[in-house]
Order: sequence, then structure tokens, then C-alpha cells
Amino acid sequence: MTDIAKLLGDEADALLGYEVTGIPKDRLHLPGPDAVERLYGPSDRSPQVLRNLQSLFGHGRLADTGYVSILPVDQGIEHSGAASFAPNPDYFDPENIIRLAIEGGCNAVATTFGVLGLMSRRYAHRIPFIAKLNHNELLTYPTTYDQVMFGSVEEAWNLGAAGVGATIYFGSDESRRQLIEVSEAFEEAHELGMFTVLWCYLRNGDFAVDGTNYEDSADLTGQANHLGVTIEADIIKQKQPTKNGGFPAVNFGKTSKLVYDGLVAEHPIDWCRWQVVNNYMGRIGLINSGGESKGESDLVDAVRTAVINKRAGGCGLISGRKAFQRPMAEGVELLNAIQDVYRDGSVTIA
Amino acid sequence: MTDIAKLLGDEADALLGYEVTGIPKDRLHLPGPDAVERLYGPSDRSPQVLRNLQSLFGHGRLADTGYVSILPVDQGIEHSGAASFAPNPDYFDPENIIRLAIEGGCNAVATTFGVLGLMSRRYAHRIPFIAKLNHNELLTYPTTYDQVMFGSVEEAWNLGAAGVGATIYFGSDESRRQLIEVSEAFEEAHELGMFTVLWCYLRNGDFAVDGTNYEDSADLTGQANHLGVTIEADIIKQKQPTKNGGFPAVNFGKTSKLVYDGLVAEHPIDWCRWQVVNNYMGRIGLINSGGESKGESDLVDAVRTAVINKRAGGCGLISGRKAFQRPMAEGVELLNAIQDVYRDGSVTIA
Amino acid sequence: MTDIAKLLGDEADALLGYEVTGIPKDRLHLPGPDAVERLYGPSDRSPQVLRNLQSLFGHGRLADTGYVSILPVDQGIEHSGAASFAPNPDYFDPENIIRLAIEGGCNAVATTFGVLGLMSRRYAHRIPFIAKLNHNELLTYPTTYDQVMFGSVEEAWNLGAAGVGATIYFGSDESRRQLIEVSEAFEEAHELGMFTVLWCYLRNGDFAVDGTNYEDSADLTGQANHLGVTIEADIIKQKQPTKNGGFPAVNFGKTSKLVYDGLVAEHPIDWCRWQVVNNYMGRIGLINSGGESKGESDLVDAVRTAVINKRAGGCGLISGRKAFQRPMAEGVELLNAIQDVYRDGSVTIA
Amino acid sequence: MTDIAKLLGDEADALLGYEVTGIPKDRLHLPGPDAVERLYGPSDRSPQVLRNLQSLFGHGRLADTGYVSILPVDQGIEHSGAASFAPNPDYFDPENIIRLAIEGGCNAVATTFGVLGLMSRRYAHRIPFIAKLNHNELLTYPTTYDQVMFGSVEEAWNLGAAGVGATIYFGSDESRRQLIEVSEAFEEAHELGMFTVLWCYLRNGDFAVDGTNYEDSADLTGQANHLGVTIEADIIKQKQPTKNGGFPAVNFGKTSKLVYDGLVAEHPIDWCRWQVVNNYMGRIGLINSGGESKGESDLVDAVRTAVINKRAGGCGLISGRKAFQRPMAEGVELLNAIQDVYRDGSVTIA
Amino acid sequence: MTDIAKLLGDEADALLGYEVTGIPKDRLHLPGPDAVERLYGPSDRSPQVLRNLQSLFGHGRLADTGYVSILPVDQGIEHSGAASFAPNPDYFDPENIIRLAIEGGCNAVATTFGVLGLMSRRYAHRIPFIAKLNHNELLTYPTTYDQVMFGSVEEAWNLGAAGVGATIYFGSDESRRQLIEVSEAFEEAHELGMFTVLWCYLRNGDFAVDGTNYEDSADLTGQANHLGVTIEADIIKQKQPTKNGGFPAVNFGKTSKLVYDGLVAEHPIDWCRWQVVNNYMGRIGLINSGGESKGESDLVDAVRTAVINKRAGGCGLISGRKAFQRPMAEGVELLNAIQDVYRDGSVTIA
Repeated sequence: MTDIAKLLGDEADALLGYEVTGIPKDRLHLPGPDAVERLYGPSDRSPQVLRNLQSLFGHGRLADTGYVSILPVDQGIEHSGAASFAPNPDYFDPENIIRLAIEGGCNAVATTFGVLGLMSRRYAHRIPFIAKLNHNELLTYPTTYDQVMFGSVEEAWNLGAAGVGATIYFGSDESRRQLIEVSEAFEEAHELGMFTVLWCYLRNGDFAVDGTNYEDSADLTGQANHLGVTIEADIIKQKQPTKNGGFPAVNFGKTSKLVYDGLVAEHPIDWCRWQVVNNYMGRIGLINSGGESKGESDLVDAVRTAVINKRAGGCGLISGRKAFQRPMAEGVELLNAIQDVYRDGSVTIA
Repeated sequence: MTDIAKLLGDEADALLGYEVTGIPKDRLHLPGPDAVERLYGPSDRSPQVLRNLQSLFGHGRLADTGYVSILPVDQGIEHSGAASFAPNPDYFDPENIIRLAIEGGCNAVATTFGVLGLMSRRYAHRIPFIAKLNHNELLTYPTTYDQVMFGSVEEAWNLGAAGVGATIYFGSDESRRQLIEVSEAFEEAHELGMFTVLWCYLRNGDFAVDGTNYEDSADLTGQANHLGVTIEADIIKQKQPTKNGGFPAVNFGKTSKLVYDGLVAEHPIDWCRWQVVNNYMGRIGLINSGGESKGESDLVDAVRTAVINKRAGGCGLISGRKAFQRPMAEGVELLNAIQDVYRDGSVTIA
Repeated sequence: MTDIAKLLGDEADALLGYEVTGIPKDRLHLPGPDAVERLYGPSDRSPQVLRNLQSLFGHGRLADTGYVSILPVDQGIEHSGAASFAPNPDYFDPENIIRLAIEGGCNAVATTFGVLGLMSRRYAHRIPFIAKLNHNELLTYPTTYDQVMFGSVEEAWNLGAAGVGATIYFGSDESRRQLIEVSEAFEEAHELGMFTVLWCYLRNGDFAVDGTNYEDSADLTGQANHLGVTIEADIIKQKQPTKNGGFPAVNFGKTSKLVYDGLVAEHPIDWCRWQVVNNYMGRIGLINSGGESKGESDLVDAVRTAVINKRAGGCGLISGRKAFQRPMAEGVELLNAIQDVYRDGSVTIA
Repeated sequence: MTDIAKLLGDEADALLGYEVTGIPKDRLHLPGPDAVERLYGPSDRSPQVLRNLQSLFGHGRLADTGYVSILPVDQGIEHSGAASFAPNPDYFDPENIIRLAIEGGCNAVATTFGVLGLMSRRYAHRIPFIAKLNHNELLTYPTTYDQVMFGSVEEAWNLGAAGVGATIYFGSDESRRQLIEVSEAFEEAHELGMFTVLWCYLRNGDFAVDGTNYEDSADLTGQANHLGVTIEADIIKQKQPTKNGGFPAVNFGKTSKLVYDGLVAEHPIDWCRWQVVNNYMGRIGLINSGGESKGESDLVDAVRTAVINKRAGGCGLISGRKAFQRPMAEGVELLNAIQDVYRDGSVTIA
Repeated sequence: MTDIAKLLGDEADALLGYEVTGIPKDRLHLPGPDAVERLYGPSDRSPQVLRNLQSLFGHGRLADTGYVSILPVDQGIEHSGAASFAPNPDYFDPENIIRLAIEGGCNAVATTFGVLGLMSRRYAHRIPFIAKLNHNELLTYPTTYDQVMFGSVEEAWNLGAAGVGATIYFGSDESRRQLIEVSEAFEEAHELGMFTVLWCYLRNGDFAVDGTNYEDSADLTGQANHLGVTIEADIIKQKQPTKNGGFPAVNFGKTSKLVYDGLVAEHPIDWCRWQVVNNYMGRIGLINSGGESKGESDLVDAVRTAVINKRAGGCGLISGRKAFQRPMAEGVELLNAIQDVYRDGSVTIA
């Protein structure tokens, strides 16, 4: 097993020993082996959706823990194939993307129509597929940021997907059109028995104030989550917060002083807890994303993110670039280290 | 029972003893135990719609009185989760929202797809669900005011809703698109056997003249109601008026001098009566909203609103923030006090 | 019977004795008891449409004359409830609108979804319903003029309508979108067996030249009619012209000098005759609207309009405000006076 | 029979004796009694479309020659009823339009939904109907030029049409939307078994250069035809060219010097031949339009147009205003003279 | 057989002897007789799509080699009929286009709805048809560049197509709308059993920097391919690159230094290899286009392009203008020379 405390170094105590007092853990609905029945059972999701959720929660090294580790690969579209795969060109071949997820012990692989479609009959029955429905591509000039549907929900079902994923850029002009598109897609996915994962991002140039970007603040991302669960996302993918105070800094919207005074302390686990709270007190699973690869520090960074997510009440990690922008064996190692955080009973809910 | 006269204090006589002369009560169709048959029976609403209306009128502490008390919770979207639930974070958990409605003796709970969907199989058979179809969210920057569909009418039916709710911002640029969207949604809801509730709001910055905001004037809200009943709303939710004279002040549209000279006196009950008149003389139920929570005065404010609504000929109250932005027991108490106004035979039609 | 000549006073000879020479009456297809078979029989209208047309032509005091008298009430939307019903607030109650049409001996009542829907099961079998599909409302600020669909054709059929009505504002920017919407609605109405009535209006601020408004000129309204019959309106509702010469005054479009030299004399009956000519030589019925209520002169005005319409070759009148902005008994009297013009054999085709 | 040479006068030799050398006639697919089988037989058109094409080619005085003479009447919409029918108001009555086509020996009548719909059950079995789907109307102010759908393809089929017609204004901003609309309409028409006729016009103010309007140049109209046959028009209606050199004069697009040097001589028959060439070498029939009525010269003008069309390899004429803006007997005479050109074996392919 | 080395002249060694080291050939999935089973077999393409892919790979002189030679003719729309066919007007006749493909030994003919539709029943069973769904036409003025749908996928199936083709102009404003349209069309084509070919172009005036146009750079076209395979194109048609370095020169998007330092050498075969790499390491076939006809050098140019394509790992050529803008016998000769490159075992993968 990964020695988590050792990896965290100086931060070990601050992260592993911290206890949340603002919204204490006993107010939350926490992950667990019975998550599908306990959390989604009373909902309007159909038995086919429950089965697909169970296929997700029951697969890979985290099978039946209530936690998930997902390999996401859509950066070839969101950035470019060159930027994403030049470090290890093997991943231009879609089969290797899926092999990494399988060998890395992931619960699922989340990637594009093209990749999943081409490997459909060989792998859809070997690991749950999450088909990413929309993307922003960077080949249009001048660069614009908007999510475009690359295929249909029915096409995702036809290629054997267990779930679908989609992005909304909350905060932006286009967010409302995206919200409508994605809520319709999620409804159709549920009708076809697939679960739904929302890439629940903030994007607005004006959320940067005096050099600080509040797109990953606890309060703004929390509210994005609150909108995301409202359109029946089954799992929310969100960046892990690095600060609080987005609403007051940008000076818009409505918030409450209590969020900055007592409910959310100035600690990464409290910031992430606020995301969990906004996920209907944890009833809807929160997974955090791993962020870009920075080379040597990737392992520590990934484990740190996982510790915060788990202790805050989240249900897993979705880490791509750190895993595929290196040799496959190293990628497997990194994914396993993440999973070890969730398998390690000594990492508790804060 | 709540001592209404005592709560109203100095205003008790002015409110409880007032008689309307402009449009006297004998011109109205009034609420009553036979409302569903008498008011909706001759209409084009199907037997399934009548059954769902009866499920609404027949539930809770006001069962079979012809009056309704509804708990609405969509402020997490319309404002933010932080602003709405920080006073009592328990309500981040959707189950508590529904529990408050049940324990508070409400006829129904009106809230979002996310909340109702997640609690669907546990509660849809225990209290009528009103699924709010559209919302304005405040996470987009700069702030804009427009209603966006968060799900479909069929999705509402699938999660067990008895009725649907939707907002139109009359007066605004977007009102006509909203009117088309909502009239189509209401038609589909009726086809699926659900009743329809219109959040019938005015919104236009230019309705404020010389520091006075006429968005809650009797004449403008009355006309909004008149448009609302035209698209076959079964119940109109409207702010209670605090003045008259919106058309003359803004100096637009068409009105009649009679509305300011003899038909509508300068009294809160007359202003509210004009809303009832515009609801096809009361054939379509008028419920007023409770407004924001101000703390200690909430109970008095809520009872006062109920008295005016009832005496004007309205059929109930829909009060959210006053009820859920405090401990649950206090919320139940407040909801019961509202209901007591309608249960109290001494509060008559003016 | 109404003494028409006496009512017309000084104008009696000029109106009752006039003979048209431009387009003489023997070129027209005239109203008559066999109108449905003779005029609509050879058309593409289905037997169900013919039955509904017969239900219209066969109802009320003008039954089986080939003429129609229709009560239209949509001014609560087009203007406001206050402006329309303050003179007699009884008409806020939809039942009274329908009762006026029945007691006034009308062939049909043309009003909103809300009114007809609420009274559907009680009255749809007692008088033909014409459901007005679209409206312009005056609650949006700044005021705009565009027709918006308030419901669907199927909804009209479901509430028991015999026909549908819709407005196009010809001349305006929005007219082409409206033309497409209405032609699609009319096609659907015909498929469902309902007849179609076009509120065939001109609206363009630039049609006023040197203080004269040509929106009711014979040539512009005539061309509007010609467009209206092209999209398969079964009946055209048009304002009665008060002048000719719109095309030359505004200086646009294409016309012919003959229309101002010999085909259309400077006489109200000739102006109205040109509207009939543009209705496929009278094969499609022309009804004129009654205009606003001016109080005492209403009876004379209405009878005068009817005389011109009948003598020009039109098939009836559609008069609302003159009838419902007074006590019901007086309204019935006014409607009956209009009908008497068409029942009076001494008022001939000019 | 009409004495064609005599009518052409001084131009007789230049038109009747000319031989084309650029694209000689043996490269063409020419009209003939077996046109339906030979030209459309190998195509994707269904047996029902072939039957309707045969109903067109097999009707009237040109029956079974491979040529067509069509009466088009949509100028009441495109210009106005006044401008179109004041010269002979009988044609306000739709029955007379159809009677003119029948008595004039035409293969078909092409007119509006309103006209055909009203006469449907009396005449659809007596002469093929071509329902014109879209129009530009001149009642909107300021004047705009765009084609708007006045009805649906299914509506055309329901009224008994054998074929549909539609206009595209190539060259204009709106042409691409029109192209999509019309190609969809043509596909639907084919599915319903109707043939398709494209009013294949050029319209762009900037096609006039130094006082010369190139909207009827051989090269621009030829390319319009080439686009028209690509969307599966079965017959192309095009203005007869009066010049060549549109691409070079406007200085846009792509062309070839050969079109001005050797392939197309400076002769009306060569210009028209280029239109035929662009109709897949004559596989798709080319009909030219007759243009406006100028009174006395109409007969000569029409015969001249027919001679050029026939000798170039075209398959007929579609002439409206020259035929209906005069007494019916004269209109019949003019239509017959046109037909005589195609019946006269001495007028050969150049 | 064509003497390829002789044709290449001074360049023969540099092209025929070159070995790629950046992404070596053993990382690729290469063309071969078993391509359909090996490359498309594991995918989500249905047995009907596999059958149509096999009809393509199994036809003509390259049958069962894994390579394809396709004749594309849509320049009559994209440029004009005049510009395209004046050199040999025989090709205005659609039958000759198809005859050239058959006699030239092509695997398929890719052309317009009009051409294929008119020859449908005579040729669809004799050579696979690829129906080009969208086009940009140059008759609109001022000239605009956007792809417009000329027909539907169902229409393509009805005329007997084995596959469909469509263009996206990546980089442009309109690219995202096109991406949605084409991905929907491709999904529908797959559902109907047809394969999909993407004309995967770059178009943006700002991609020209300091006089160099990067629209055919290896990195930009490579990324376009990567987007193209994501929407489930079965074959990508791309211009052969003439340079690298588009992203750095235009200074936008995201790329990797490795693409310019070691993965892609400055050699035409390496540039083309990068396109293959971006086609999922060759799993999706890459065909290059032949470009315009320049007369005498056409044969050498075409063979050179084929050599680079084959050695890079591509699967064929699609060459139109070089083949049809000359006498048919010469066109056949040129097509055969291209095919000889792929039939010649001595031209190896670099």
C-alpha cells in the first residue's frame, strides 16, 4: 500500500488529522458499499440506471467501496492531440487509453465518441464506458470557449456506454444554453438506462479579481454543484477548491456571511466539504479532477487531492494527464496510489 | 388556534372588519370544499387533472377547505444554496425540505427536479409534488434575468409530480418567449394529467418610477394574472400588491380610469381583490407568496398576508423562506399559523 | 325589426341606394343559404371542415342565411382586462362572455384559450367556439407589436373549438414569420376538421403619410386579404376601409392605375367591394370588425358598418367592444340590430 | 398553325437558320415523346414521380411531344392582386385561372395554395396542378426580397397537386437558407410522388454593373441551373438570357475563358444552349419564362422566346402575364401560338 | 506498370528511400487486405456498415489491397460548372462522370445528389456511390465560405449510396455548426448502414502568416483529423501537408514542442505520417486529395502525392480535376498511374 502520510510530508498532520466543525460529517450522506441502494435507490432513477451505477461502483480496484477512480481522456479534443499525446504517442491509439484504465484498476474510462466507438465491441463489456458528449476544441481561431455536442445520447448507448458525461461552463454567457442541452441529454441518458456525470466547471474571465482567479473557489464551485445536482447529474466532477470568497470578491450574485464566518473554515478540506454539502449533503457523489501533469510532483499532488476529497466526504478522483502523459507502467502506479487513499481505512472522513 | 386579531395588533380592525364595495364578493367565485368540481369541472381539464387537483386540495391541514398552503423551495437556484440554506444547512438535504412540508401540514411541496427526483420513490405518494420547471440562476455574470427550463414536463411526470410550476417574467423582453414555452409546457402537463401553477411575476427595471417599484402594483399584477389564466394556469402565484397605479405611473399600456376611481379602493384587500377579479372572477385560484424572511416579524407578516389573501377571495399562501430559514419546529409553527387563518371561520370574505 | 333607413339618417340614401359599377355584383360569388356547399364544396376542405363551417353558418339568429354575426372578446389580452372590462366587470367572468354570444343570437363566440377552456364542457356543444390562437399583449414595456401563440391548434380542438382564429400584422417586419406560423396553424386546423378565420390586419407606422393612416385603405387591406385567402383562410376578418390610395400615398409595392380610376369609386361600398374582390371574388367570406365603443353612437355605427359590408358583398360582422362594454341587455340589442341588417331583404347587394 | 417565320420578321433567318457550333446538339439529351422513360427512367425518381411527370408531359396540346406549355399565376402574391388582375379582373376568381390553362391547351397550371385549394375537387383531375410553395410578397414595407413558405408539401399533395414549384433567389444573402428549404421540400415532394419545378432566379443588386443587369446573363443563369439540378429539380424554370459575361463583369466566382471564347457564341440560341448544357446536357428539362405583358408585341415576343428555347434544346415555355392580362380568348390564342412553335417540325434543334 | 522511380526523377531517392524515425511504422495500424475486419471490426459500426466498407475496399483495380482510389466530382458546385467542365464539356453529362470512375478502375465515385440521383438505377449497383452531402457554392455575392446541406442522408440512401461524404471547414467561425451537422449526419448514415468520409479541411484567412498559408501544415491538419475521427468518420480526406509549424506560426491553440523537435522531421512523409498518427495511429484510413490540374505535370504530381501518402501509412488518393479536366482516355491513364503506386510492392511503408 502507498504510504500516504510519508508522501504528504509536512502537510500530513494538517490534512490527515483535521476535523471539520462547520458542517460536521454526521450531517452528510457518506460513500459506502451500499451507495447505489442507499443514495440512488429512493430516487427517480430506473432499475437500469441503478444497474449501470452498480457496474461503475462495482468495477476495478475500488470495487464495492463506494468510491470511484475514473480515467478521463478528452484532452486531445479540449487541447490538442499534440499537446496531450506527444509525451507518450502510444495514446494516439485508442486501444491504449482503454488498456490503461483496465490495467490501472479504474472503475471506468471516460473519453470521446471516436475512441469508445472504435473499440466498442472489444472493450465495452470489459470496463464501463463513460461517453463524453460535448467538447470545446481549440482549433477554431480566434479561440472561443463553448461546449459543442459531438454526438448523441443514443449514439453513446449504441456503442455500449454505461454512462454519459458532459460539460457546462457555469458563469459564462453560454452556460444557459449548455444547461438546457445537458439537462435534455441527461434526461435522455436516464431514459436509456445510463448514469450521468457532469463536468461542472466555472468559466468567466471576470471571475479573476486582482490577479486571483476565483473559478476554483469553494463558494462558486459549490453553487455550480448545486445547479448540477438540480439537473439530475448522478456524479459531479469538480475542480478541488483552493480558496473561498468568490462571491464577495467578484461582488455579484447572492451568498451568506455565514459561509465565510463559521460554516466553512479556511482549510482545503472545509472548502471541499462545501462542495459536498452543495451536492445535496453528499447524496450525489463528488469527484475531483486531477489537473495537469507537472512531472515529478504528480504522485504527491494526486494523493493529496485524493486525501482532501475523501476526508471532505467526496467519492473519488478522475485523473487523466498525470496518468497518461508518462509510460504506461508509471501511469498504472499513479492510478493505484490514488486508489490506495480510498482503500486505506486510516484515511477517515474529517 | 392562532389568535389572529392579537397578532395583527393595531391593524386588526382595518383588515378583519373591512368590506369591499368596488367589486363586491357576490360577483366572485369563491374557494370552498367543492372547488374542484364547481370551478374546474366545467373546463377542458381531464378527469386525471381533476384527480390531481383534488390530491392537492385534499391534503394536509387545509384538506377539503378549498384553500391551500404550499411550501416552495427553489431559492437555492434562484438566489444560491448559500444564501438560502446557510441559516439552516439541514435543508441542503432534499429530504428535509419534503419533511418540513409534511410536518408543516402543507397541501404540497413545490421544488426543483433535483430535490424531487432524488426523493421520488420515497415521498411522491406521501405528499403532492409540484415540479418547478424553470428557474433564473444567479451564477452567470453579469447577472441576467431570464427563466431557463431545467427539465421537461415528461421528466416531472416520471418523478411522480401531481402538478408543475413555471415562472413568467411579464413586462420583460423575454416574457413572450417565456409565455410560449410555459403555455406549451402547461398544455403538455394537462395532457399528462398534472395541474399547472404559474409563478406570475412582473420584472422590468423601468417599472420603478421616482423610487417607487410598481412590479407589485394591483393593476400590473392583475393584468399579469389575466394573461396567466389565459394560458390555462390552474393556480396563479402572485406577489400581494402594496399599491395601485402602475399603468399610469409608468405611462404605458391601456387601462381604465374606473380602476383608480371606484372599482379598486386604496386598501390592501381591494388591491388583492383586483388580482382575484383578473383570475376570471376567482374561478382560477389566487395564491400569494410570502416573501423574504426578516426574522422576528415573520409570523405577523405571514398571518397578515394570509388574512388579506383570504378576505380578498384568494385561495391560499405559498411561503418558503419564512419557513425554512429557521429551525424546523419553528417553521412548522409558522406554516400552521398561516393555515389557521384559512381554518378560522371568523376570517370572512370582505 | 330595426328601422335601418331611419338609423342611417342623412346617409340612408347614399348607402342604401348606391349601385357599384367598377366591379359589378354579377361578377361576385355572393353569400347565401347554400354557401357551404357552393363556395367551399369544390375546395380541398374536408367533410369535417364543411361540417364545422355549417355549424357556424347554421347557428343563431342568422342561421342559414349565409351571413354570420360573431362575438369576439380578446381585448383583455390585446389591450388589458382593465381597459376592456371596467365598463362592465361582469365580463371578467368567462361564462358571461359566452352567455352574451348565445343570448345575442350570434353564430359563434371568438375568444381566448383561457375563456373557452374554462367553460369548455358546459358550452362547446351549445355555440360554436372560435379559439383565437395568437395575441399581442400590452404588458411588455416598451410596447411592442407582434403576435405570439398562446396555445396550440390541438389544444383548441381538445377544448371543443369549431374553428380557429389568428392574426397577421401585414406590412410589418414580423409579418413573414407570422404568415408562416399562421399558415402552418391553419393547415393543422384543417387536418383536425376546424375552419379558419384570419384577423387580417395591416400594421406599419410608415403607412401613415401626412397625418393620414392608410392601414385601413381599400387597396392595402385588399392586398392583405389576397394574401390571407392564399394561405387558406376560410373567412377573412378585415377592418372596413375608410379610404383608398394606400399604395400611391406610401409609394411602394405594385398596384394598377385602374384601381383608382375606374374599378373602385370613391364610396365606402366600393372600397369594401374591393376587399370582397380580393377574397377570390367573394368565394371566401369577408367579415368586417366593429371597432371601439364610443357610447351613444355605437348602434348607428354598427348598423352602418353592416349595411356597407352586406351591400359590398361581405358576409357579416364581428363586433365586440360595442357589445360587451355596456349592460348585457343593451349588448344583446346591439347584436340583434346588426343581425337585422342581414335579415332585412330590402338591404340588397349594391 | 401559326406562321412563325412571318411573325419573327427580320429576325426569322437569324433565329430559324442558326446552327450552334460551341456545344453542338449531338452532345445533348433532347426532348422527345419518350422523355419520361429516357431521361428520368434511370434516376432515383419513383414510379409515382414518373407517373406524375407523364401526366404533365401527356396533357394538353403538346401532349406526348416532350415539350410543355405551363400557365403560371402567382403574380397576385409576388406583385399584387391589383397590379396583376386589374387589366382583367375576372382572374381574381380562381376558377378562371384554371379555365384559361385548360382552354389554352396547357400541360399544367402552376399557381398558389389558395387558388388550387379552392378549386381542388373540381379541377385537380382535369389538369395537372403545380402548387407553388413559396413566394415573395410586396406588402411588407420597406420592400424586402425573400421567399417565404406559404404552405407545406403535404398540403400540396392533399389538394391534388401533380408537382410542386419553388423559387430560389441565387446570388442573394438568403439563397442558402432557401436552398436548404427547397431541397428539403423537393425531397419530400418526391417521396409523395410529385415532380419538382425550380423557379431558378438570380437576384442581387450588385449584379448590375455600369447600367447592365447580369441577372439574366448566360453564365450566371447557367450556374444557377447547375445548382438547381443538383438539388433534384425535375424541371428548371429560368429567364431566357439576353447576354453573356456575368462572372467577368461582376468579377467574382470562378469561370473559364472558354465560355466566352468558343463554347458560347454571342447569339441568343447559344446563350440559351449554355443553360441547357448546365441542365446536365439537357437531361433535366429547361423551360423559359415569358416575362411581363407589353401589349401588342406580346405575341411576337412569346413566339420568339419559344423559338430560341426550342432551338437551344429547351423543353417549353411558362408564360403568365402575357396570357392573363387580356381577354380570355386572346390569352388562349397566345398560348396556342407558343405551343405551335413546339408542334412545328420545321423549327429544329440548332 | 508505371515506372514510379523514373517519374519522380531527382526526388526518387528522397521519397522512395526515406525512413521515418519520429513515429516509426511499427506503431501504426497499416492498410491491408483485411482492413475492414481488423480495423473496423472491433468498432461500433454495424454489419451493414462493414458490408459497405467492404464494397468500397473490394472494388476496382485496388480491390482487396486495403487501398482506395476515389474519383471526386463536386467542383461544379464548389467552383462552377464552367470552371470545372469547360476543358471537357462531356462531364456536364453526369453519366460520363460515373463512366470515368468505372473505366478508370476507381473504388468509388464521390459526387453530388444531382449526378448520382439521375444515374441511380443504372449505376448504383455497378460502382459504390459516395454522396457528398454539403457544399460551398460560389454564386452568392459577396463570396462566402460555408458548407450548406444540399440533401439528406436518407436521400443518399434512397439513391443507392454506399457511403456519404461531408466537408467541415475547421478553424472557421462556422466550423462548430458544421461539426454538429456533420456528426449528426454521420450518425444517421451509420444507422442506415453507410460509411462516412470526412472532407477534413482547414479554412481561416488568419492561418496565413507573413505570406505563408498554414492551412496545409502538418500540425493543423493533424489536429483537424483528430477532430474528424472523433465524430466517427470512417475515412478522412485531407490535403497533403507541405510544411509543419502552423500552431506556433499563428500562435494559438495548444501543441507540444516535441512535434517540432523529434516526433515529426522536416520531410513530406513525416508531415503526412503525423496526419496518419492523428487518425488513431492509422486505424482510420487517410486519403489525400490530388489538388488542381496544372496540365503536363499532373501525372508526376499525382504519383508523387500517392507515394508520400502510401509511404506515410495512408490508404489512398482522391483525385478529381487532374482526371476529368482532359480527354477521358488520359484521365483513365492518370487514375491508373495513381493506382499503380499502391499496387507496386516496392513502394513500402517508410
